Amino acid sequence: MRCVILGGAGFLGRHAGRAMAAAGYEVWSIDQTMIEPAGSAPWLAGEVQANCFDLPAWWDRCGGGIDVVVHLASSTVPATASADPVLDVQTNLAGTLGLLQALRGKGGKTRLLFASSGGAVYGRPQAVPLAENHPTLPMGAYGVTKLAIEHHLRIEEATHGQSYRVLRLSNPYGEWQRPHGIQGVIAVFAYRALHGHALDVWGDGTVVRDFVHAADVGRAFVAAARYEGSARVFNVGGGEGHSVNHIISTLEQLLGREIERRIFPARPFDPPVNVLDIQRAWDELRWKPTMAFEEGVAKALEWLRGIP
Amino acid sequence: MRCVILGGAGFLGRHAGRAMAAAGYEVWSIDQTMIEPAGSAPWLAGEVQANCFDLPAWWDRCGGGIDVVVHLASSTVPATASADPVLDVQTNLAGTLGLLQALRGKGGKTRLLFASSGGAVYGRPQAVPLAENHPTLPMGAYGVTKLAIEHHLRIEEATHGQSYRVLRLSNPYGEWQRPHGIQGVIAVFAYRALHGHALDVWGDGTVVRDFVHAADVGRAFVAAARYEGSARVFNVGGGEGHSVNHIISTLEQLLGREIERRIFPARPFDPPVNVLDIQRAWDELRWKPTMAFEEGVAKALEWLRGIP
Repeated sequence: MRCVILGGAGFLGRHAGRAMAAAGYEVWSIDQTMIEPAGSAPWLAGEVQANCFDLPAWWDRCGGGIDVVVHLASSTVPATASADPVLDVQTNLAGTLGLLQALRGKGGKTRLLFASSGGAVYGRPQAVPLAENHPTLPMGAYGVTKLAIEHHLRIEEATHGQSYRVLRLSNPYGEWQRPHGIQGVIAVFAYRALHGHALDVWGDGTVVRDFVHAADVGRAFVAAARYEGSARVFNVGGGEGHSVNHIISTLEQLLGREIERRIFPARPFDPPVNVLDIQRAWDELRWKPTMAFEEGVAKALEWLRGIP
Repeated sequence: MRCVILGGAGFLGRHAGRAMAAAGYEVWSIDQTMIEPAGSAPWLAGEVQANCFDLPAWWDRCGGGIDVVVHLASSTVPATASADPVLDVQTNLAGTLGLLQALRGKGGKTRLLFASSGGAVYGRPQAVPLAENHPTLPMGAYGVTKLAIEHHLRIEEATHGQSYRVLRLSNPYGEWQRPHGIQGVIAVFAYRALHGHALDVWGDGTVVRDFVHAADVGRAFVAAARYEGSARVFNVGGGEGHSVNHIISTLEQLLGREIERRIFPARPFDPPVNVLDIQRAWDELRWKPTMAFEEGVAKALEWLRGIP
């Protein structure tokens, strides 16, 4: 069984690839960049440096006959999608549509697993935890594009029989998440705390978010690759919420010292609580997160100690 | 008060322009083509031949300071969007996003009225008539793009204060609708019947659809241009369904003779009934259709007598 990871050199791509390999798949990474240092991704059968959306550029180079495509490719994060929604549409949406068209000619046995966003597609929560049937009223371009791709996947199955599953991820964290980005609060906080820098907190720190360890996300892709039931869209979250204050106190416990905070005014557009209901993933996929939050943060912290 | 109609030379564009002019607006048509014959659109202050999505190409040529933009521009119909969804995204979705970005620099007084599709955004009806809060599960690329644009309009209002209203139209019909297209069953049937050709019917002709006369659609744009309440999305339909058999019997009555039918197998993807709930448009906009179906079909038939 052959699997390609679109975005296989990224943070989530490495976790997904490792999990798929552990489940017995021959795993290839497709990415614009090669994984460094060379040899640091021993789970891979190979890497292809290519545009993920350009299927002809990588299909044969992985040996063809691909059973599972894990689609983690994205040219944007929420902030950059809002800054340039046209680019978001022209790369991620049009790119994924091109991928679907190219898959039509490939024998029909390939299943596409798409990483959607549980934080972006629902919009402001009308009820917490957010189940998959919650209204989808995204508050940013990133979520609109994710949702449009979900619709196109549903249509592609109905009209051309394309197999797919959608995982609506909450906020993944864990080793390989870069601490210098504009998202990934756990990595950013842990890295700053390690180096003695203050943490920026908007409001009183009671805002609650859903965090899921990336190794658990990897296992969710394995479960979705094997699932033969009728559900198509699954929330994948940590199963509980954690406040900003709790993240900081967890880091303080692990580091054995207090961490300085810089308090800024609360941001009115931040919903106070955003937690995914993951019951369907358990009922249908028999998946649930296994990593305790404190253990996951400890592992992320350990990994970050090796980052300059 | 100045109004531009994007797609003002088209079937709906002429009705919208005429209605806006009758309501006191100075109306400009923006379209790739000029209205022919020249002078046949006396309601217009002027025409600009330009790409509708390229705001700088037409804004100043209409005198700027535009109060209302009626957005009827579309490069696709449902069938062509499904055939080439990448083109649909790159023109209609990316084009509308570009339009929104260009509007940000124009003083903030312009209201955008967007023609969405009540036939495409809901997907297979879970209950009839379809109200605006019915789930949106489009079954084609055309509906996905319309829905994505609706989301972006909502976000643009929330983040940049852009005023907008969405009209989800059912199947408009009436004079100026071309009888040689791949949509517009009333125009197609009426024209064929006029010329003694048989009508193609899939199944037993009991499929029910929602038809709204284009002059009523024009009045709905006027109502939406003036509306200051909190609703943003409105179904605009005929208020009742008509079966294919009823369309044909209406034409038979108007023509005073029987019309030949060619019967083909029913198409399984056709929902048996698709009718919009238009209560919100009445409650909020004080709009409801005024054209009786038989009268509207008679007017369309009269207009088609002049078409070669």
